[in-house]
Amino acid sequence: MYIVHSPTHQRHQPPYEIFNGEQTPHNEVPARADQIANALTAAGYGLEPVRLELDLAEIENVHDSNYLQFLKLTCEELKESEYRYPSVFRYRSGRESGNPLAQLGNYSFDMYTPLLHDTFEVASQSAACALQVAQTVLQAAQGGEVTAGYALCRPPGHHADFNQMGGYCYLNNAAIAADFLSAHGRVATLDVDFHHGNGTQHIFYESDRVFTASIHADPDWKFPFFSGYGDERGRGKGRGYNLNRPLQHGVTDDEYQQVLEEVLGHISSFRPEFLVVSLGVDTHESDPIGGFRLTTAYYTRMAKTIASMNLPGVIVQEGGYNTKLLGTNVVAFLDGFKH
Amino acid sequence: MYIVHSPTHQRHQPPYEIFNGEQTPHNEVPARADQIANALTAAGYGLEPVRLELDLAEIENVHDSNYLQFLKLTCEELKESEYRYPSVFRYRSGRESGNPLAQLGNYSFDMYTPLLHDTFEVASQSAACALQVAQTVLQAAQGGEVTAGYALCRPPGHHADFNQMGGYCYLNNAAIAADFLSAHGRVATLDVDFHHGNGTQHIFYESDRVFTASIHADPDWKFPFFSGYGDERGRGKGRGYNLNRPLQHGVTDDEYQQVLEEVLGHISSFRPEFLVVSLGVDTHESDPIGGFRLTTAYYTRMAKTIASMNLPGVIVQEGGYNTKLLGTNVVAFLDGFKH
Repeated sequence: MYIVHSPTHQRHQPPYEIFNGEQTPHNEVPARADQIANALTAAGYGLEPVRLELDLAEIENVHDSNYLQFLKLTCEELKESEYRYPSVFRYRSGRESGNPLAQLGNYSFDMYTPLLHDTFEVASQSAACALQVAQTVLQAAQGGEVTAGYALCRPPGHHADFNQMGGYCYLNNAAIAADFLSAHGRVATLDVDFHHGNGTQHIFYESDRVFTASIHADPDWKFPFFSGYGDERGRGKGRGYNLNRPLQHGVTDDEYQQVLEEVLGHISSFRPEFLVVSLGVDTHESDPIGGFRLTTAYYTRMAKTIASMNLPGVIVQEGGYNTKLLGTNVVAFLDGFKH
Repeated sequence: MYIVHSPTHQRHQPPYEIFNGEQTPHNEVPARADQIANALTAAGYGLEPVRLELDLAEIENVHDSNYLQFLKLTCEELKESEYRYPSVFRYRSGRESGNPLAQLGNYSFDMYTPLLHDTFEVASQSAACALQVAQTVLQAAQGGEVTAGYALCRPPGHHADFNQMGGYCYLNNAAIAADFLSAHGRVATLDVDFHHGNGTQHIFYESDRVFTASIHADPDWKFPFFSGYGDERGRGKGRGYNLNRPLQHGVTDDEYQQVLEEVLGHISSFRPEFLVVSLGVDTHESDPIGGFRLTTAYYTRMAKTIASMNLPGVIVQEGGYNTKLLGTNVVAFLDGFKH
């Protein structure tokens, strides 16, 4: 399996999250990607460093160019040791403000996703991993070969919306890969992260080019709260092209498998030509911020089930916060995905 | 002058603000109202404790009943030493969530406005001060007498919107007084706080019962950032019934006076029968979070100019953060407002 990672991801290291007004340890730590990379290598997978440079002009379907410029310039202006957390968020007026603190609040929706000097560069490299895998998978497909690749993305992406960062995400890696592939055929995205992929959903919410599906913790229970309900089906041209399956606390392997098969049935009806999987392993029974009960062995079964669709596939790393078992679970998934 | 205050306001004491992810000293401290009360007493003004109890059913034009119930129940459930700050704010989905953390974020727009055990009770008493003054002024007006009264409100109110707290504000005291009076005649609100009265503006934005005017720091420069621009004139029936005069850094007495006279001209054209003044003395040259250069003597002139409209008036305390000079400036204003 073709695997791309970014060796510079460590430079993005958020100092803390703000929970109930208190600084708490940040969950989206460099050790996450390092541990996955080590486990992959130990399991015999080869990792290629990302070589593609993200061209901002080519992702303007996915992210607002003003948002991209804001991220780029704000990070460039920060000193190595500095960071920016928002304080004031957009309210119902809908107006924008030239004040930098206001812009930060306008482009954010939580207190978990700060900007640091290297954040934009590292996030761009993360997106480039997904795009490089997508290009390679596309090339193989154009040569008649169905392959899958894995992008070891860090920071993750699926909470990043058209013009908002949040949930540790700045650029939506999966959406960038899906948008790229959609120029060449119908694309389905399947988000199996513990949390709803709100960014991916919203970016394609009015589009019939990309079918978005997400299996996740009920947003009445867990982040990101304000989307991910079962009645969100898309809008306009995109009506019917979004599918959410919110699940409750304690979901087991068999329960998950049943939902997965049902969702894959809907995806098949769309007759996709490419598949983008947002892979979060925070669905694991040991995850410190999750709440499902999936086992390591199940990730192999999950992957086999998804791979049975026999589509050119881009697997994009999203969440997963047990830094001891992340790599084991990702390896279990990729072992199952081999065509 | 009839003056009402709430002796229990000290029980609301936010532990800190969150600025750039750091806990910083909170500006909206109990010493603010205490210092004003002391200065008023020293200047010979009599203060009456609030006796009115706020009836939530009577303020549902001003605040969403779900928001009021959320504030009430959340505060009741907190222990004396506990507090709640939001972490995740509403994004573009527009959905609501049953999760309490999500509800808190849904009903908030900044990191400056936490909930404590006594917050709702103290905020209700603060609103009751404004309402008690409004009732007294109305009664006098109905007897043919034009009088003005002052509500020593703490916490302040003008940033509190229909269903959002922010900017140290939970219930919109001025809007509650204005809504009450509007059943008896046309009401103009004049907000002379340093910051834009976004809550008051939005609450009456589609209404022709209440004309809202605000003179404040340009929102491109200062909080609350996302409203307060000159082109916001109201909507629907309310079109033409909102007026903003954003001003730049360093405004002097004479510059302010010119704008005030122009704004009063617009208010006069509306032929109001009652006036509600949102009085912030954070426009003073010494204010730690302001940026204008008004002098203490100017507050007397400002008040005389406003009082020359000869309307039954409710003066509601909003901001002002120099706890050494707050009372002096409020006394200067009230000295000038005597009819």
